[in-house]
Parts: sequence; C-alpha cells; structure tokens
Amino acid sequence: MIASLGIDYRLCATASAGRGGLDDAELARWLEKSGRATERLVRTFAEGEAGFLGVPDDTAGVAAVVAVAEELRAGTDDVLVLGIGGSSLGARTVVEALDSASNGPRLHFPDNVDPHRLARLLARCAPDRTAVLVVSKSGETLETSAHMLVVLDWLRRGLGAEKVGSRVVAVTDPQRGHLRRLAEERGFRVLPIPPSVGGRYSVLTAAGTLPAALFGVDVTQMIRGAAEARDRCLRPVADANPAALLAALHVGHMEERGHTTHVLMPYSDALRTFGAWWVQLWGESLGKRLDRTGRMVERGPTPIAAIGSTDQHALGQLFAEGPRDKLITFVRLESPSYEDLVVPEADPPYAHLAGRSLHAVLNVEQEATALSLAADERPSLTVSLPRLDAHGLGGLLLTYEVATALAGDLLGVDPFDQPGVERGKRIAIGMLGTSTAESEAARDRLARAPGTHRYAE
Amino acid sequence: MIASLGIDYRLCATASAGRGGLDDAELARWLEKSGRATERLVRTFAEGEAGFLGVPDDTAGVAAVVAVAEELRAGTDDVLVLGIGGSSLGARTVVEALDSASNGPRLHFPDNVDPHRLARLLARCAPDRTAVLVVSKSGETLETSAHMLVVLDWLRRGLGAEKVGSRVVAVTDPQRGHLRRLAEERGFRVLPIPPSVGGRYSVLTAAGTLPAALFGVDVTQMIRGAAEARDRCLRPVADANPAALLAALHVGHMEERGHTTHVLMPYSDALRTFGAWWVQLWGESLGKRLDRTGRMVERGPTPIAAIGSTDQHALGQLFAEGPRDKLITFVRLESPSYEDLVVPEADPPYAHLAGRSLHAVLNVEQEATALSLAADERPSLTVSLPRLDAHGLGGLLLTYEVATALAGDLLGVDPFDQPGVERGKRIAIGMLGTSTAESEAARDRLARAPGTHRYAE
Repeated sequence: MIASLGIDYRLCATASAGRGGLDDAELARWLEKSGRATERLVRTFAEGEAGFLGVPDDTAGVAAVVAVAEELRAGTDDVLVLGIGGSSLGARTVVEALDSASNGPRLHFPDNVDPHRLARLLARCAPDRTAVLVVSKSGETLETSAHMLVVLDWLRRGLGAEKVGSRVVAVTDPQRGHLRRLAEERGFRVLPIPPSVGGRYSVLTAAGTLPAALFGVDVTQMIRGAAEARDRCLRPVADANPAALLAALHVGHMEERGHTTHVLMPYSDALRTFGAWWVQLWGESLGKRLDRTGRMVERGPTPIAAIGSTDQHALGQLFAEGPRDKLITFVRLESPSYEDLVVPEADPPYAHLAGRSLHAVLNVEQEATALSLAADERPSLTVSLPRLDAHGLGGLLLTYEVATALAGDLLGVDPFDQPGVERGKRIAIGMLGTSTAESEAARDRLARAPGTHRYAE
Repeated sequence: MIASLGIDYRLCATASAGRGGLDDAELARWLEKSGRATERLVRTFAEGEAGFLGVPDDTAGVAAVVAVAEELRAGTDDVLVLGIGGSSLGARTVVEALDSASNGPRLHFPDNVDPHRLARLLARCAPDRTAVLVVSKSGETLETSAHMLVVLDWLRRGLGAEKVGSRVVAVTDPQRGHLRRLAEERGFRVLPIPPSVGGRYSVLTAAGTLPAALFGVDVTQMIRGAAEARDRCLRPVADANPAALLAALHVGHMEERGHTTHVLMPYSDALRTFGAWWVQLWGESLGKRLDRTGRMVERGPTPIAAIGSTDQHALGQLFAEGPRDKLITFVRLESPSYEDLVVPEADPPYAHLAGRSLHAVLNVEQEATALSLAADERPSLTVSLPRLDAHGLGGLLLTYEVATALAGDLLGVDPFDQPGVERGKRIAIGMLGTSTAESEAARDRLARAPGTHRYAE
C-alpha cells in the first residue's frame, strides 16, 4: 500500500475556529487563486524554469547517485557532509526521518563554520575510512569552502596527496563555480545540482539523495513518492491538490486574518529537522523586500518550527494566550516512526496511562492541543501520514516545495531568489580579505553610537 | 580571571540603526522604567517570592547534588534524564555548552513522549549501569509520568524490584505531587526543586545541576558565576545592570518600534540549546492573555532561536528583507568553545581564507551580519563572553532569567505563571481516561466544519 498524505483543515474554518477561521467564501476565493497560481507554475515549468519540479523525473540521475553511493559504502565508516543551509538541511531531514533504515556508515553534518564539531570529527574519523561530500550549489559558499580546505588538508596529511581525490565527492552546479573547477583539477567525483534548482529546493537532487543513499535510504522509492506528489500538486484545485490547498490556507489566513506567524509542529522526533528544513524553505522564499513588480513590500511570514509534545511545554503558553497572529500546522504519523513502548499496568494516580502506548499518548496530545486552541478560536490544520517511509517522505517534501512556490505567487513575490544575503557576504569577505568601501562604511556605523557595557567583577 | 559578559548595544540606537533604533531619550526612559522594575523585583524577592534569585545562595543544596552525583557516577555508564520543557532544557543547555568538560557517563534526554528515542535507548543501555533521573516540578507531568512508568518497568525486569530504587533519583517539589510520594514508597533518592522556583527558572536547581554534575561540569563554579551575576542584576541601573539593560532594550523596541519578534542568535554550536531554553523562558513568561490588572491583552513577543553562521543560510533572507518587526540578539564567544581549526595556505579564489582560524571566520561573519542589517536600519545587539566555562554560563543563564522577570514587569504581565496550557492538559487526560464534558465539547468542534482531504493514488 502506498502511503497517503492527509490534510485536515476543519480547525481553521469559521465553523470550528470562529473568528480565527476562514469562512466558506474566503476559502473558495483563495483556493481559486491558488488554482490559477498552479496553472502559472505549470507554464513556468514547461518554459524550463522551476526546475525542482523536474527532479523526480531524473531517474538516470538517481541511478548515478546510487552507483556512487555503492562504490563508496564498502570502504567507508564515516561520511562528512560539508554544506550549509539548503546543502545540509534536506539531507539531514531525510537521514533523521528514516534513521531506522540505516545499515550504512555514520553520517555527520558539521553545518556551521564554528570549529566546535568539525574539530572533534577530525580527531575521531580515520581518513582512509571517511568519505567527504562537499555540497554547494554555487560552489563558492564561504563556510563550505573553509571546511573543505581544512578537510582536504586533513585527508592529504592522512593519505598522501594522490589519494585525496578518491575520498571526495563534489555536489554542485555542473556549469559554474570554483568547486566544479577544483573537482576537475583534483579528480573528485562530481554529481550535479541542476542549474535551475535552487539550494533550498535541492533535497531531491544529489544534495539530498547521495547522503541518503550512503546512509541506506531507498532513494528510488523516495523519488517515486516525490514524482507522484508532483503530479498531484500540479493538477487542478477541483481534483484536490494538496499543495494548492496548503498555499491557499496559509496565504488566506495571512491576508484575511493577519496570521503572519506560521508554525510547523510535527508530533514526531524523527521530523525535527523537517521543521528546520521548512523554516528555510518558507522563510527564505517568502520574506522579500520587493514584489514581482519591483514595489517595496518588506513582508513575509515568520516561520517557526516546534516539536510536539515537547514544545507544548515551551511555546504552548504563547500559542494559547499570546497574539492571535498564528496559524499552526500539526504533522502526525498514524504509526510510530520506530518501535513503540507500552505503559505497564499502573495504579492511580497513573491509571489513565496504564496499557497505553506512548505513540497513542503522543497522538492524543496532538489532538487535544489542536482542539484546545480551537476552543479559543485559534486556528490550526493537521497534515498526517500513515507512516514515515522513503516514499511518503519524498511526497511530503515535494508537496511543501510546491506549496511554497504557490504561496510566493499568491503573495506576489519571487519564491526562488534570496537577494538579501548578498550584502552580508560582501562585508564578511571585505573584512576577511582586502577591505572595501562597503566594509569600511559598515564598520563606521559602530563609531556613531555609544553603548557597550562589559560586566566584570 | 573571571569571565565577563559584555553587551554591545550600539547597533540598536538611532545613531547607528536609524529608524530601527531607539534614540537617547527613549533609551533613558526605558532604562529608568527598568530600574524601577528592578527595585520591585528586589522587594518581591525579599518577601519570599521570585525564588530563582535565591537559588545561587543554596550552597548546601549544591553540596547535596554533588554528593548524589559522586555516588552515582562510579557505577553508571548512561544517564536517562526523564523530563520535558523546563525539566530538560536547562540541563541540556549546560551539558551541551560545556561538553568539552565531560569525563563522566553519557547523558540522554528523551524529552518527548514520542517513543522514537526512548525505545532505542532502552535497547542500548544496561539497567545495572544506568541512572534514571525523573525531573518534574509538579511531579505530575503527563509525558514524564508515562516515561517513568515504562523505565521503572524496564529496570524491574532487568534488576528485580528490590534494586530499582537505587538507580533512580526524583527531582521535584519537596512539598507536593505524585512523584514525591512515589519516591518515598519506592526508596528513590530525592532532590528538591524549591516550591518558589518555576520549571523554566529551574536550571540552577538540582534539575540542572544534577545532570551537569553527573556529566562532569563544575557546578560549584557555575553557581558562583550565577551568584555574582545575580548581584549585578539587582543593582541600580546607574551602576550598569545587564538584566535591566536587556529588558529595557527588548521592551523599549517592542513598545516604541513594534519590534515584537525577538531573535536570539548565538554564533556557537555549543549554545544551540541555550537558544531553545531562552525561547521557553521568554515565550512562556511574556506571552499572556491577561495583564496583572486582569485586563485582556493577548500579547507577548515571538521568540525565535537561530544559530550563526548556519542560519544566515536559512533565516538570513527574512531578517534582511522581511517585515521590520525584529530585534536580534547575537551572542558571540571571544575564544573557541572547543579546539580551533586553521585554514591552510590556499590559492585564489580561496586566498581570503588562507591562514584564518574557523573561529575567527565565525566571528567575522557575526559582525558582518550585524553591520549589514544596521546598514538597512535593522537593529541588533551583541552579547559576548570571553569564553564558555561553567562560571560564565551560570552568569549568562541567571542574567537572562532576571531580564525575563523584568521584561514581564515592564509589559505588565506575570512572568512566573503559565495558565494557558491547562485546558489542553485537561482535554488530553479526558481523552486518555474517562471522557469529560470539556473533552467531549472539544471533539464536537470537529463535526462542525467540513474539510479533510486524503491524497492517495
């Protein structure tokens, strides 16, 4: 049986969530808009853009990934995945969600230029039993470049220069970038992130599938699940299109009710990084200074990732009593992601727990939280999966990618660019290398205001 | 030398951050208010409330914790910390921040009722070499109770009923709760969370110090750092009070500029859980339906934890171009939390990285990000520590606890309660045990609205 994704949106409708919900006419209007956005996305894709939609069709690409993974697995105990942002979050999401599938090497994601984790990893791993994946769409990411130079030197010292190339795979844009050129010079294997696929939409390319395949995930099934979801997500709204529904609900709640804080709260430890992946996808795609016509808008929802039931004890109070600016999406699994545990017979005061499985308690808590919020007219929706497997996860990821692209269209912004991070990069490079007028001007700001305290005894 | 905490607030002043900053008169006004709030907090503490301020003086309590930890460490390879929310986040923060200090057993925090992690842990740990800490202020937390029942049964099957008590420590309110009674019946060791200390303010009680001491942290130094910070945080604003400054900046930016999304972004992997701890502290303390006079306000800042440099590649775009509703606090360490790594000599295009240490690159990125945001009139402040040690961490934690209490006063809400999570708990218990009118009414909401789609092939 094929896993089927469900979306229960009863608790974000007026009938159940009062003033916190959308009424039937509003929902119909946003669904219609979302349907038109879907038609535009289909056309954009046909014109060769929005390349992430084509990734699930690249069966030759998947076969190439599987071949590289099989080659490397035999001689590998540890895999260092050097990448950051979209070049790390997708792979980490898959590996964490499907970790019961593992029969391969240990995967490590030191996704911060902070040496804290990388220093420990290099002390613990054996160069001749370690595979190094360097993942960067542009091939020029500062953090990834710095890590790569350190790790290549570590390999060289451990193995000798001539053997370094055999331990390294570069995953990058095949048409440009320093990393591609370096890979050619040094004889690294190279796998592509297609030029038309942005970093945060790259989980189903080699950026996600190579680490996953090394770990032991059935990436062919994952891609198949994504391909089926893609077909569902491009069909007319009248035929029940999950991505169009998600986009309509989120943008509708934002525009009609001012629900600008969007929370994704899986009741599942295995989906913790899925939340972080979605935060990047949603926040970076929708938070923009300019709309598509060049008008200054400076808008975008605030995405928050929470985990149930854990964060009931952290953010629950704010969700229950704070500003009415939030739409929460719960994610639940109908069966446990790993082995279940059952509470033994117990006397009062624990009798209500006796004989319950922990997974059942988890799902009761999810439902109780959603219902409690609705009782105070605070809206939510619930995405459910029968179980967490490669096929279902591929579908979930692709569905959220399409929903993000459609939400960008509905908000009038470009969901595929990220112009805002360039200035910070330029200033950092100016501060590291030869200072520029821009990096000097930035530093001058600090002289303008008083205001530093240092507290010591 | 004693670590000294610094607060650089130049980039949230008008002179450097334009319309995103506070001007001198505004800052002075909020500092004055914050000073009066400090005086009120001093009085509240003198009257026997706000008990978290007294925790650093309990040297006998610390000695008791250290004694229990030493007793347990000899025979223990693994420690299961069963707790959730404030009964997990504080301890995890300390253990993660000071993990290079470890010379003790492995600590595990399965802080979710989801069986995903606990099932694996029980399969891997040996009952006779495992210590179990059950941490719950109320002694009645649903998740912790469920985990405890499962783990006690696992110990009983592994060791026999008579030996279970010796492997378990209950950390709870000594005056009330099921857990305290069960501990007496079964002969568990008991360590207190004082009645006047709420869960989210409990990191410096046994809830945090017992796991930390088992791990190998010098908790005496941590408490000493906290005591010194407490003295700084209760002194007049004119004498430079770091907590009063933090409260004034956050509430001032919220009230004067509408900066209601507060981001805490340590540039440090070791401070990742510190961000999650702060999210609970800030969100649960300040997000309230009613103010102190009983007026409906439904307000509270939205706290977001991010990590630098990683999240420059995830949330950076939203921070740079999205709504101007954010105040970001960067946290930086002037020396690395673990071993540093140096980028080797490198040719162009990597010449700007050659010879740089990764920790230096990290801190350049932090400064460049703050300056880039300020160049677009987006405000931030930077908290810095010379290094991450037990003394400095204790001070940092206590400083943020006081800042939270003061911010609650400035916002007119009670920073010590959490009334909003009770309904959800009651509904969950009704759904698990005998259904109640409230749990039935909650479920009836689902029948009122159409709206569930399931997408399958």
